[in-house]
Amino acid sequence: MFDKFHEECAVVGVHGHPEAANMVYLGLYALQHRGQESSGIVSSDGDVLISHRQMGLVADVFKEDIIKNLQGASAIGHNRYSTSGQTDIKNAQPFVVEYADGPIAVSHNGNLVNANELRQQLEESGSIFQSTSDTEVIVHLIATSKEKTLTDRVVDALHRVKGSYSLVFLTTHTMIAARDPLGFRPLIVGRFRGEGERDAWVAASETCVLDLIEAEYVREVEPGEVLVFSRGGMESLKPFPEATPARCIFESIYFARPDSNVYGHSVYQYRKELGRQLARESHIDADIVTPVPDSGVPAAIGYAEQSGIPLDLALIRNHYVGRTFIEPQQHIRNFGVKIKLNAMREVLQGKRVVVVDDSIVRGTTSQKIIRMLREAGAAEVHVRISSPPTISPCYYGIDTPTHKELIASVHSVDGIRSFIGADSLAYLSREGLYTFFKGNDAGYCDACFTANYPVLADDNGKTPQLHLFEAVSRR
Amino acid sequence: MFDKFHEECAVVGVHGHPEAANMVYLGLYALQHRGQESSGIVSSDGDVLISHRQMGLVADVFKEDIIKNLQGASAIGHNRYSTSGQTDIKNAQPFVVEYADGPIAVSHNGNLVNANELRQQLEESGSIFQSTSDTEVIVHLIATSKEKTLTDRVVDALHRVKGSYSLVFLTTHTMIAARDPLGFRPLIVGRFRGEGERDAWVAASETCVLDLIEAEYVREVEPGEVLVFSRGGMESLKPFPEATPARCIFESIYFARPDSNVYGHSVYQYRKELGRQLARESHIDADIVTPVPDSGVPAAIGYAEQSGIPLDLALIRNHYVGRTFIEPQQHIRNFGVKIKLNAMREVLQGKRVVVVDDSIVRGTTSQKIIRMLREAGAAEVHVRISSPPTISPCYYGIDTPTHKELIASVHSVDGIRSFIGADSLAYLSREGLYTFFKGNDAGYCDACFTANYPVLADDNGKTPQLHLFEAVSRR
Amino acid sequence: MFDKFHEECAVVGVHGHPEAANMVYLGLYALQHRGQESSGIVSSDGDVLISHRQMGLVADVFKEDIIKNLQGASAIGHNRYSTSGQTDIKNAQPFVVEYADGPIAVSHNGNLVNANELRQQLEESGSIFQSTSDTEVIVHLIATSKEKTLTDRVVDALHRVKGSYSLVFLTTHTMIAARDPLGFRPLIVGRFRGEGERDAWVAASETCVLDLIEAEYVREVEPGEVLVFSRGGMESLKPFPEATPARCIFESIYFARPDSNVYGHSVYQYRKELGRQLARESHIDADIVTPVPDSGVPAAIGYAEQSGIPLDLALIRNHYVGRTFIEPQQHIRNFGVKIKLNAMREVLQGKRVVVVDDSIVRGTTSQKIIRMLREAGAAEVHVRISSPPTISPCYYGIDTPTHKELIASVHSVDGIRSFIGADSLAYLSREGLYTFFKGNDAGYCDACFTANYPVLADDNGKTPQLHLFEAVSRR
Amino acid sequence: MFDKFHEECAVVGVHGHPEAANMVYLGLYALQHRGQESSGIVSSDGDVLISHRQMGLVADVFKEDIIKNLQGASAIGHNRYSTSGQTDIKNAQPFVVEYADGPIAVSHNGNLVNANELRQQLEESGSIFQSTSDTEVIVHLIATSKEKTLTDRVVDALHRVKGSYSLVFLTTHTMIAARDPLGFRPLIVGRFRGEGERDAWVAASETCVLDLIEAEYVREVEPGEVLVFSRGGMESLKPFPEATPARCIFESIYFARPDSNVYGHSVYQYRKELGRQLARESHIDADIVTPVPDSGVPAAIGYAEQSGIPLDLALIRNHYVGRTFIEPQQHIRNFGVKIKLNAMREVLQGKRVVVVDDSIVRGTTSQKIIRMLREAGAAEVHVRISSPPTISPCYYGIDTPTHKELIASVHSVDGIRSFIGADSLAYLSREGLYTFFKGNDAGYCDACFTANYPVLADDNGKTPQLHLFEAVSRR
Repeated sequence: MFDKFHEECAVVGVHGHPEAANMVYLGLYALQHRGQESSGIVSSDGDVLISHRQMGLVADVFKEDIIKNLQGASAIGHNRYSTSGQTDIKNAQPFVVEYADGPIAVSHNGNLVNANELRQQLEESGSIFQSTSDTEVIVHLIATSKEKTLTDRVVDALHRVKGSYSLVFLTTHTMIAARDPLGFRPLIVGRFRGEGERDAWVAASETCVLDLIEAEYVREVEPGEVLVFSRGGMESLKPFPEATPARCIFESIYFARPDSNVYGHSVYQYRKELGRQLARESHIDADIVTPVPDSGVPAAIGYAEQSGIPLDLALIRNHYVGRTFIEPQQHIRNFGVKIKLNAMREVLQGKRVVVVDDSIVRGTTSQKIIRMLREAGAAEVHVRISSPPTISPCYYGIDTPTHKELIASVHSVDGIRSFIGADSLAYLSREGLYTFFKGNDAGYCDACFTANYPVLADDNGKTPQLHLFEAVSRR
Repeated sequence: MFDKFHEECAVVGVHGHPEAANMVYLGLYALQHRGQESSGIVSSDGDVLISHRQMGLVADVFKEDIIKNLQGASAIGHNRYSTSGQTDIKNAQPFVVEYADGPIAVSHNGNLVNANELRQQLEESGSIFQSTSDTEVIVHLIATSKEKTLTDRVVDALHRVKGSYSLVFLTTHTMIAARDPLGFRPLIVGRFRGEGERDAWVAASETCVLDLIEAEYVREVEPGEVLVFSRGGMESLKPFPEATPARCIFESIYFARPDSNVYGHSVYQYRKELGRQLARESHIDADIVTPVPDSGVPAAIGYAEQSGIPLDLALIRNHYVGRTFIEPQQHIRNFGVKIKLNAMREVLQGKRVVVVDDSIVRGTTSQKIIRMLREAGAAEVHVRISSPPTISPCYYGIDTPTHKELIASVHSVDGIRSFIGADSLAYLSREGLYTFFKGNDAGYCDACFTANYPVLADDNGKTPQLHLFEAVSRR
Repeated sequence: MFDKFHEECAVVGVHGHPEAANMVYLGLYALQHRGQESSGIVSSDGDVLISHRQMGLVADVFKEDIIKNLQGASAIGHNRYSTSGQTDIKNAQPFVVEYADGPIAVSHNGNLVNANELRQQLEESGSIFQSTSDTEVIVHLIATSKEKTLTDRVVDALHRVKGSYSLVFLTTHTMIAARDPLGFRPLIVGRFRGEGERDAWVAASETCVLDLIEAEYVREVEPGEVLVFSRGGMESLKPFPEATPARCIFESIYFARPDSNVYGHSVYQYRKELGRQLARESHIDADIVTPVPDSGVPAAIGYAEQSGIPLDLALIRNHYVGRTFIEPQQHIRNFGVKIKLNAMREVLQGKRVVVVDDSIVRGTTSQKIIRMLREAGAAEVHVRISSPPTISPCYYGIDTPTHKELIASVHSVDGIRSFIGADSLAYLSREGLYTFFKGNDAGYCDACFTANYPVLADDNGKTPQLHLFEAVSRR
Repeated sequence: MFDKFHEECAVVGVHGHPEAANMVYLGLYALQHRGQESSGIVSSDGDVLISHRQMGLVADVFKEDIIKNLQGASAIGHNRYSTSGQTDIKNAQPFVVEYADGPIAVSHNGNLVNANELRQQLEESGSIFQSTSDTEVIVHLIATSKEKTLTDRVVDALHRVKGSYSLVFLTTHTMIAARDPLGFRPLIVGRFRGEGERDAWVAASETCVLDLIEAEYVREVEPGEVLVFSRGGMESLKPFPEATPARCIFESIYFARPDSNVYGHSVYQYRKELGRQLARESHIDADIVTPVPDSGVPAAIGYAEQSGIPLDLALIRNHYVGRTFIEPQQHIRNFGVKIKLNAMREVLQGKRVVVVDDSIVRGTTSQKIIRMLREAGAAEVHVRISSPPTISPCYYGIDTPTHKELIASVHSVDGIRSFIGADSLAYLSREGLYTFFKGNDAGYCDACFTANYPVLADDNGKTPQLHLFEAVSRR
């Protein structure tokens, strides 16, 4: 509803825990912000895989009897936010199939930039496809691999795909977590300490999962690492040559939960620091600093602290808002924003206001918010964005508009200011993003700000692609 | 609920009709008796296949907006009755996938007796499976075939499978109907005459479909025949060597709707003739002839006519009965039968009654019915069955109990009589089945009465098998 | 869907049985033919009344947990078929309220012809109404009665209403069954014999309920009788002066289940006798007699027996048909009938056919059936109706069309014959209806055939009315 | 889920607007925080009332077709939070009935302390009741009033009830808003300015409704005022003698949305002032001030500003949390709180923390939060509550626990501190509540802090009562 980039998926896996499916369920609950269209869990009772996938939020998809039915000591789960309208249950994950060595399930966060070529090759060799998801390509590569063991087949398959992936696989006895060589999407590993017994293990997109289920944070799954969880515990493989990572910086800026620790850093502290840096880079005299809730709050606190301008909440968010409304036919101005945000005259009347937000994508929401602020009495509205202008789409698992729709791709900062109706507008510098890391920008992907894409579709330097398969069939 | 063999599936296809999906829907409606667990339709709009499958009856699965969404001039459909409790939506048909030449859908009635071997071979070559249905095996064989055209791939695949199949395939432009070389399961072809334009074509399990949608009956799809429907009309291929057919005689005895014409004969007239022959073979003095409704009615009319004993309805059937009930905890005798049938004292009091039914499987329902008749005043109860004793399970697409559960497999006719509590019991002779065909028994499978199985699992004479794949996963 | 009169309601009550709600549920199941729009049960656990009412069929409305929740040793139930499109859950029964003496529930089959006047009077005294049902009027009369005991209040209320009612009331300790002084609608009483303990009692619209739940038939509740069931057993009151009853003859002709015993007679035997009498009154030379299934079957058997013309089934009914269909936009002739009935050429070709049905209301279905029979080869079609022409609407609880829509009200028999396209048409005489009762027509209401209405709206001879209240609100 | 008092209801009404039901729907959306169990709207099309009520949230209860069906230029709505587990749809509002003058609907926020006596009197006069809601009592009083006009009947009825009520009535042509003489619950009136035509009017629990639908705030409905909206516009009646009002102060402290203006004051500014006053009254040396989100945020901002201690967010709230969870069987400490809140070590490690919350009811949630903060590294935890200790239940429409469950009713402040495990605990003084009003405490009800109840059940000084009617029946 808001004008934001969208994270596409959450993955969770738990191995060796007596309530594995319940733990995965709680993990998906904690990661609901990463995908709201479908949710699924597959568990292993040591004999068969048991699955439940459904369109809807975690709280609606899983009921007591369903969780009870997902028996066994290992389970993986997935939340999905679908891009391009292909909201078919067939694309819901975890994806489950049977191949020569038995059943296998997989949860995937990311996007394969060579999925189209691989699918064509596989189909030419006789493979059949039942979904439009690039995840099915990975499973076919595992099934058709000439290797013998599960681990070797997985590694073999991963060598053939390009792009971004944080993956969790489940077979009847083994769980495997894998992250692409550049580590585009986050993936962490945690542990339940066994009391005199075996430890149980957790793999998840974000650390907030561990906080909820009271597991201990071990570390990031490293870029290019493959972790194999079995009765023997956790084994680490590094089948890829080392490379400079390309961790998505937008996870830290916006996607991840503020209470998560991503890439080894507190997201909340990072966002506060972006706010402080923003105040250093583009100070302005004003009466109050106010965030666009909820994502703008940490940066606004940082901005207020650094600038000395008092923080106040001029915009109140209604958290009961669902995903759709019945709009009146008669025009209500700014309705789409008003249903979620209300601007308070008592706070704004006659004030010079600094509004802090994390990003501007199309500019449409910003325009409406600024109009609301002015109508509620703001004397001046100065917009401060805690990241650089977003000029280029993402091909690594984030739902972004096309170039043309990205306002910063077609307009100057002053053009944007004029469009959204602000008195002044300033973005954080690219360098500002890395202040918190002591200025070290190595190891991050910021292609959405720079158009420098770390992985291309092929060796000829072709731009990466989205895996937009034609629908086989529609429901 | 009743103690009967169960037909497992219905197939329908319509090609070249502006309301193809609506016609298939009506066809599935007419064939609801062949499968009540799930229903599905796939249509082609010339560009993509569009599908809807769901657990439930046809009337519940398809609503106006769903049928509207199933656009295009070709469509195929399927009703399924699942055996062995694998009631997963993944097994619902039509089955749809994408392979090298694009999307393909298939509806299948029958059972492949070598499915296990084929699946193992395919998995060893890298195929992945998503269902436990043998139909997925056929699709993999098509996808991995070395042939070039759709028709050649289909024929190639059919040469590798053994067992029973009446199949309808759909691609974006072509519909193919195919029947196994021995023609176990029925399949007929019909036509809508085009007015100065192209004809439209129908393939379906039974002719009652044609009556409802007002298409013209053309003929049976012959055993071993492959019919290809495209813009050029209907083309017939006969890729298999000729063989004596093995059409399922139980279709004529019980499965098919009485108003269908199966294998070129009126089902209703055949059943009346079985009743007449039964009267000839095992007459008894009695006051009334009464059917077990609804399936016993035509044979009872024939029996009454031939014997001269008046027909009367002593058992009334409640047609509002659903599939499940809430039973009282306190014992009600014969409850399972009483919820569907009621015996009328006014008709039965002091009467010698001939009860005509089409078959006895386990004997449990017959026992309860006879007890009800006696409690309602019947002086004598003589049971007459319009087919021979069922002594052996079916491996060709019918849901039958195991040998041990078939009462005629473990008991003599007198033992059965004693178990069900009848004063006398007589079955039709095997020869009696063929009186209507002038005694000619060539061309029919009656393995359930004789244990003579026309197709074996392999060339070593091994008994055929059911395709009971292990579940990949359960929902 | 068929062109028939419709029964509006079923009532059941069970008192003193440990599984009262389950027994009522089974009773409603057996009476599903009397109402298919909503169903409800109210039980008493001796302390409070517990209720569940819902739109839908009995099998869909009641699930195991719902029945379990309906605790207690007494319960009443209701099936409703709504007239005039007021399908509001508020009108679903049993109706439950609290008045000065505590909670009371009521199930009603019938129609009060002075409901409008009574409602107006009650509202003027301050009563508020929540439904558009005339049953709420009865409850208000009980609540505002000056009498002291429940029984006296009920009797007082019944003295103020006019029209037809078979009622079952439930309070926390007492069940009351009451039938209007003329006994328009049926109501019977049955008993479970207690083993050394108290008997349990059943009141129900039809005896088929007793057969299913294995209770013993005691007798009709007599016209004008009020039966009070309490710990002391059953007590009978007769608070009305004796009058010639006016039992609805159409119950015997069409509404009741054939296996029920209505007004002391077997419905099935009565209908067979109507067929025999019809054959006596209007014989014709023909090759076969065939019923319109299912309601025409008993009369067709009687007709065939009497006439000596063989019975055959030319029309096959599909019992899987639901309440709605998705019709093709392209014209299919007779579609509305074809979805339920199919005419068999093998039976009809070249034959002179006598078609037996129980009634013709608008004539539209008959017209389509006759067209189907001719298209399937019938040489001649002779229609025989086992009741007189229906010329006048019912105001006593039956859903009938208006005068204008009743074909026999505006056309002569020959006009009807011409409209439906038959070669000949004959109805049963009014006298023929009473042959089975030795010609004694006293005690029956046949106003739909004669327009002789036994109860008028007021003493000035005004025609009776339907209780068509304006909707308070719509959902 | 959190340990808070609960507001029981929201009311909205719109009169004279072409999209009345859509506007009421939006109003209910904005007031979802006041009731989440059921929602309903009744509209008038000038002829009949049209209603839809259902269990669930506003977004789930109303779909496009339902809103479309709620035609007409006037509509009222209601959100309900049910107390005492009586979650019957019969108690959902608006309540609709028909009485002598036609249909009437009513939405009620409040509690009648003499409902039991009135109900008994009404039943003794012959009234029947269908719900357990005290709102039905009001409707009966209107229906049985001897007055002639709607307004007179309403005023007559209101003179007989005691307790709290903000009411909106709807008939086919008139809307009436009424507030009890002491004005316990809030109720405001707004206006859509007509362009050359009639104005449209809004009555609602809070002003945030007006912001969303872009209506203009007119004023509070005054305590004891009755507003009649008809074609003639708005007419004000004051049928009660003037009295010192008793506006619920807890609305300003916690219930109302922060962006609402309640009793003429900005809720957000009031809560910030409570925080400032709290800092004045009970300063402590600390490193950060952190709110318990979301309700503690404004007071925390005020506290931080006044104290000079920096504001930081140590507790992150997950807003995707639904109403129920599947809890693991193995113990997870503080699970009930953790699913909603996470404490951040990066913010807390080694810090002395001031935690600001608005109230403590049972103390259980506070205990868990403090444990979480310490486990995340907090060196000291000082709890500051922006209202006085809650020592006494509310009888005026708020869901509060009993005396015994209110921790401040049975424990000293130090006892509470010890129970929740804080290093220090301070509450705001009663005087502090009124600082913002220049110390003027006249006109507010703070019985929950003082046990001074402004309205008693009868003239003998009996404590007020909750309207806990026995259930007539349960679903």
